Amino acid sequence: MKLRNPPVNALSLELLTELVISLEKLENDKTFRGVILTSGACPAGGCIIALSCDCRVLADNPKYRIGLNETLLGIIAPFWLKDTYVNTIGHRASEQALQLGSLFPPAEALQVGLVDQVVPEDQVQSTARSEMARWLAVPDHARQLTKNMMRKATADRLLRQRDADTQNFVSFVCRDSIQKSLQAYMEKLRQRKG
Amino acid sequence: MKLRNPPVNALSLELLTELVISLEKLENDKTFRGVILTSGACPAGGCIIALSCDCRVLADNPKYRIGLNETLLGIIAPFWLKDTYVNTIGHRASEQALQLGSLFPPAEALQVGLVDQVVPEDQVQSTARSEMARWLAVPDHARQLTKNMMRKATADRLLRQRDADTQNFVSFVCRDSIQKSLQAYMEKLRQRKG
Amino acid sequence: MKLRNPPVNALSLELLTELVISLEKLENDKTFRGVILTSGACPAGGCIIALSCDCRVLADNPKYRIGLNETLLGIIAPFWLKDTYVNTIGHRASEQALQLGSLFPPAEALQVGLVDQVVPEDQVQSTARSEMARWLAVPDHARQLTKNMMRKATADRLLRQRDADTQNFVSFVCRDSIQKSLQAYMEKLRQRKG
Repeated sequence: MKLRNPPVNALSLELLTELVISLEKLENDKTFRGVILTSGACPAGGCIIALSCDCRVLADNPKYRIGLNETLLGIIAPFWLKDTYVNTIGHRASEQALQLGSLFPPAEALQVGLVDQVVPEDQVQSTARSEMARWLAVPDHARQLTKNMMRKATADRLLRQRDADTQNFVSFVCRDSIQKSLQAYMEKLRQRKG
Repeated sequence: MKLRNPPVNALSLELLTELVISLEKLENDKTFRGVILTSGACPAGGCIIALSCDCRVLADNPKYRIGLNETLLGIIAPFWLKDTYVNTIGHRASEQALQLGSLFPPAEALQVGLVDQVVPEDQVQSTARSEMARWLAVPDHARQLTKNMMRKATADRLLRQRDADTQNFVSFVCRDSIQKSLQAYMEKLRQRKG
Repeated sequence: MKLRNPPVNALSLELLTELVISLEKLENDKTFRGVILTSGACPAGGCIIALSCDCRVLADNPKYRIGLNETLLGIIAPFWLKDTYVNTIGHRASEQALQLGSLFPPAEALQVGLVDQVVPEDQVQSTARSEMARWLAVPDHARQLTKNMMRKATADRLLRQRDADTQNFVSFVCRDSIQKSLQAYMEKLRQRKG
């Protein structure tokens, strides 16, 4: 399964809907066994998807960045994303990266533990495939129960507080000050490109 | 106290009984102060004992491996062992190592933080002794209360759920599919040696 | 704001009172935005203040040490300090450092993650200032809410158990055996200097 929305693969509503439908199909496919890889530039939404994978491979392209830059937009990463960040790179690195809205270039992403491998761009696919083979070589049932044991607490907390979190986010993001902050960030991005 | 059951020091019922008796004797010996070291090849059970020590010294022998390879046998590390793994090497490293059933060679075990020192095989004993001296130089009472503060939450959780966990494990491991999976693994080990 | 109490900047009652008053003034100053830096030798109390900062810069002076050496004095770091240590350097490093009462020289402090930067002594001020500028460039509101999200659980636990913890500490530290242990440590320090 590949996500394509050139030129920047933005997570439009269409792309997200397509992703959800594809994931639901995969869940119903009993031969599917849950290992997903990712590569490319992943700020915010892209990073969320990457964090939910078993393993992350990033192309060694100096233009790529991965991380959660919510604060730079004047907004706040939700608690369940923070939990997943802490699970992946630890408490102190998360505290610093979330406050500063850090987007890590490949070498730094590898060092902080946000990705597992950094390889030349033309080897991303093959590395992903051989990595996937390594995970799928483990007896399925045991691997899946183990994954569940590792991620259940975080996922349960998200499910338990999902409605409150959604309402919070909607009311927060609709405030005038936040809308202005988002607009200012978009403007900055536009100027950088122009 | 040394554990010896040549050639592989397998944790037979006899050896475990001997270990428990020795530990109970040590607990009653008021001069004993709780620092244990370990070395050698430690998959699964050996790794559990190592994780419960204050400090781990591993011989730099390319044949040695340490880690929790339960998934490769088709079984699942219990929650209390997972908790201890996370306390020792962190959440992300545990997630990956537990799912893949990784057994780490000495250099990798050191890098991931599963052992504290890797030394030439003939220096394991002396390193262990000088390391032990370093721990025992700290005022006992303060050191033990501090250790308790660090490990109590994990130990309490184990005690609270011990019976349920034991029943779970017994019923899980008695299933036909799991017995077949264990047999297949044993067969693979036998072929590798043969 | 600078803390000065030459020659060793000991946290006397006077200095602590001055610090608390200054922090209260800063809290009432709406332009203040919560980033504090630190440098210099920081055993125990100095390390506590450093841990509560957003970022830590240490001078590369071989005489400087940072860490929590409570066990060496025969006393125990309180749970809220342990929590903050674990948040900063992880569980295993905290377990070892708290039990051994480790005071880290600059290079080791950097490696374990207890400080974020080690720079020549004459660059501490300028590094601190440029680091502070980096944090304050992030939209305030979002950064502060994010910081709150990261530290609230630990702070709440401290507040909830503050009275019990204070009583515990006072009764513990007034014991004859602990007073003797503290005296012995002071004596050792005096001899080293004499």
